[in-house]
Amino acid sequence: MSDHHTIPAQERIVIIGAGNMATQLAIALDNAHCKIVQIYNRTLAAADALRRQLQQEVSITDYISEICHDATLYLFSVSDNALPGLIDKIQGNDALWIHTAGSMESEIFRDKTPHYGVLYPMQTVHKSRKTDWRGVPIFIEASDEQAGKRIEALATHISENVIRCDSAQRRAVHLAAVFACNFSNHMYAIAARLLEAQDISFDVMKLLIRETETKAEQMAPLDAQTGPAIRHDENVMKKHLALLEGTPEEELYRLISLDIERYGQNKNITNNQTKNL
Amino acid sequence: MSDHHTIPAQERIVIIGAGNMATQLAIALDNAHCKIVQIYNRTLAAADALRRQLQQEVSITDYISEICHDATLYLFSVSDNALPGLIDKIQGNDALWIHTAGSMESEIFRDKTPHYGVLYPMQTVHKSRKTDWRGVPIFIEASDEQAGKRIEALATHISENVIRCDSAQRRAVHLAAVFACNFSNHMYAIAARLLEAQDISFDVMKLLIRETETKAEQMAPLDAQTGPAIRHDENVMKKHLALLEGTPEEELYRLISLDIERYGQNKNITNNQTKNL
Repeated sequence: MSDHHTIPAQERIVIIGAGNMATQLAIALDNAHCKIVQIYNRTLAAADALRRQLQQEVSITDYISEICHDATLYLFSVSDNALPGLIDKIQGNDALWIHTAGSMESEIFRDKTPHYGVLYPMQTVHKSRKTDWRGVPIFIEASDEQAGKRIEALATHISENVIRCDSAQRRAVHLAAVFACNFSNHMYAIAARLLEAQDISFDVMKLLIRETETKAEQMAPLDAQTGPAIRHDENVMKKHLALLEGTPEEELYRLISLDIERYGQNKNITNNQTKNL
Repeated sequence: MSDHHTIPAQERIVIIGAGNMATQLAIALDNAHCKIVQIYNRTLAAADALRRQLQQEVSITDYISEICHDATLYLFSVSDNALPGLIDKIQGNDALWIHTAGSMESEIFRDKTPHYGVLYPMQTVHKSRKTDWRGVPIFIEASDEQAGKRIEALATHISENVIRCDSAQRRAVHLAAVFACNFSNHMYAIAARLLEAQDISFDVMKLLIRETETKAEQMAPLDAQTGPAIRHDENVMKKHLALLEGTPEEELYRLISLDIERYGQNKNITNNQTKNL
């Protein structure tokens, strides 16, 4: 509880959006007994589906004009594409405006309110899969110290691992997350398709991908690398490229392998273990 | 125990190689009380390091001419590059010859012995990290039914999950493993380097990559995909490409994103959930 008049003892929160991130954040805030007064979403069905997952009673709307004006905190959790257009249409006030988009500048709010910022959780979330927020890093940025304290307080309701960052760091974190999450998942998707063509279940990959991930938790990914590219095994790579010939994955295979060799060369100046048999 | 004269009650095994896979297989066979008579490696130090990890006494050599002739099973676990030259130099006999290379044909042994095959474990292994073999799929191929039974028996000492396959399946499995393991690990390596440039520890990615991997165990990777590419979020992708401008990762980002969109389009004919906010 704060005794500063400028920091509400309890925020009254409007959630803008009802997608994957909005849903999992709203559930976490609800569990932490934060007051959610309203959910706006462009389709009412998704807002309703989210409302039904909360313990408190929350109003919903799909009209921008019906977004309530007397909340203390507006949490925008929509796609980067949708965010600017949406902000344009909402009337400004002196509440705290926050978005959760990894690569959107916080200044997008500047003409709407004096207090704004970003709350960017480093996790991949999905509506249909309850997020375990414990330990999840939440990167925050704020327009001013009051906003910073309030965003930190909000973030702490979601996870204890709150990290203040600047815009350059957040951009790097978002980009890194695309590689570590979305792109590695696409590597799984390609593997699944290659196996499917030979009537082999993706199940055979599960211990391999678990071990790959576990290794990355315990050692630097660069030190954990194995396979034909880091060994400069031209014979294997030629065979693989022949199997992929004429598919978009052929060029992907070539480029990623080259990049693995490049990373390996930089590293091998001091460490040539990975080149052993 | 077998009463067929053609299948030795207990194989007398020579391990050829002392790298990551040779080491972890030898340790597994040693734990299962299989008889390892000798380890050959081109450097004696690595053979000695492996021998010291075994409970039984095993001779070692770095001379091809000293590889013993009276073993019943020769397990070649060296790089695909080294394998053909090594086989050429070893005198043929009627023992069982097996290699562990994902993309090498089994016929490479044809002029040396009547009984040969492949034992290909679907796991990434490292000398310095004890492999948990439980449940690891081991793909096997054999020249004949006698060889098939013996390779299956050997594989069963390592893991209960033994899968007979043909060469086309094994090639696909190996290629899929490169994507699911080596290439996803490289995505982690790129993420680590991006974060390092901003003085952020790779630790912030660990729950994200764990969740990404856990999702892949529970749902099809294609259904698990999130991020700017699957959402066709051009704004975010443009910002990311600007951050990567002039680096080899710029083209990688572009190609992988295109491929994610392509996979998503094929899928979205029946399922457009991923395009929601």
